[in-house]
Amino acid sequence: MSETAPKAVVLLSGGLDSATALADAAARGYQCYVLSFDYGQRSVTELNAARAIAHQQGVAEHRIIRLNHLEDIGGSALTDHSMAMPEEDSSDGAIPVTYVPARNTVFLSLALGWAEVLEASAIFIGVNAVDYSGYPDCRPEFIAAFETMANLATKAGVTGRPITIETPLIDLTKAQIIQRGTELGVDYSMTVSCYQADDQGRACAVCDSCRLRKQGFDDAVMTDPTRYI
Amino acid sequence: MSETAPKAVVLLSGGLDSATALADAAARGYQCYVLSFDYGQRSVTELNAARAIAHQQGVAEHRIIRLNHLEDIGGSALTDHSMAMPEEDSSDGAIPVTYVPARNTVFLSLALGWAEVLEASAIFIGVNAVDYSGYPDCRPEFIAAFETMANLATKAGVTGRPITIETPLIDLTKAQIIQRGTELGVDYSMTVSCYQADDQGRACAVCDSCRLRKQGFDDAVMTDPTRYI
Repeated sequence: MSETAPKAVVLLSGGLDSATALADAAARGYQCYVLSFDYGQRSVTELNAARAIAHQQGVAEHRIIRLNHLEDIGGSALTDHSMAMPEEDSSDGAIPVTYVPARNTVFLSLALGWAEVLEASAIFIGVNAVDYSGYPDCRPEFIAAFETMANLATKAGVTGRPITIETPLIDLTKAQIIQRGTELGVDYSMTVSCYQADDQGRACAVCDSCRLRKQGFDDAVMTDPTRYI
Repeated sequence: MSETAPKAVVLLSGGLDSATALADAAARGYQCYVLSFDYGQRSVTELNAARAIAHQQGVAEHRIIRLNHLEDIGGSALTDHSMAMPEEDSSDGAIPVTYVPARNTVFLSLALGWAEVLEASAIFIGVNAVDYSGYPDCRPEFIAAFETMANLATKAGVTGRPITIETPLIDLTKAQIIQRGTELGVDYSMTVSCYQADDQGRACAVCDSCRLRKQGFDDAVMTDPTRYI
């Protein structure tokens, strides 16, 4: 990778979608500065997956920011261990209890700060508006509004080098994401999508995220490499 | 304060502007949930001031979120102790080295998460577009874009209970802010604005922030209660 290549900050959770977004950014020629968050999520194995994926993809740099605030302000089954993890289908349109308040806004804001320091020209986020779980901050209109705000917020916009928010997966089905990532060489056995994976990174097979992922491999007519408990 | 009063999250740095914004929110009948950040700023005395101001104003709750990320990503004289603190006048239109990358975006995003959990209807921030130091994220167009984004990002917007970003100081001169706060009973001797205050909260009198503050008291024809080194 040339050091004169444009830089991108890439949000990487360690899940299937963000690993694919990272591969997409790299394939488009960006130097990838990868950012993960340790925000008290149940699944620390997801972060171990993020480390392994970043290393394997040979990124320019990988940083993990520790955020305690979600444990303080509460409001999500992902970080509040007293809330039950739902196992039923949540496709009734309601916002699920696994929703983390303002999560993508917070993550993109921290990515924006790093992008500004790096003089990066893009931020990649693996949000998806098709096979998603009803989170408002995965919608294209949210991303567009964030990009507008970001360029008013920073030196980047003022000095005429705007930052774009890149969402290469936003219009893809889970099956299409898996097909795209496979073409780009993503090893999905390294990714962890489960909301309650065990210490070895094995998935529960029953949470929303597991069901969406499993269906994606089925629909893509591909072997599911996920390790289940 | 009635428990049925509307709730607001109020960003409080411990400085003159945010203390005035807090008094304004309280005067407008909000239950105030006050949020401060420990982000590695040089002036920890500012946080001590925030604690004292929140206590004195009898707020509903005061939380301090510790953010390490700015020390990691760098880019500001406020958190990078190897950068020199400028003492000359910075009113030449350039963005100063005291700028913290995406600071207000990050702070407002974390406030947004808490506001969503609390079902607060407003977030107060003491930004000011008149006597400011050239930060892009203090401009009205940034605030408007953030509000639009925030209501697309959260359940609040989806469920028809939008969150507003309140900037009671945005069009006021420093002198007008001081006059307004004095009417509301703000004790400015408790506030710390200096970028490099000492352990006792005494101000340097020479940094940008000190100069703007000092001029404000002069213009308001009021005695400056600031304790200087």
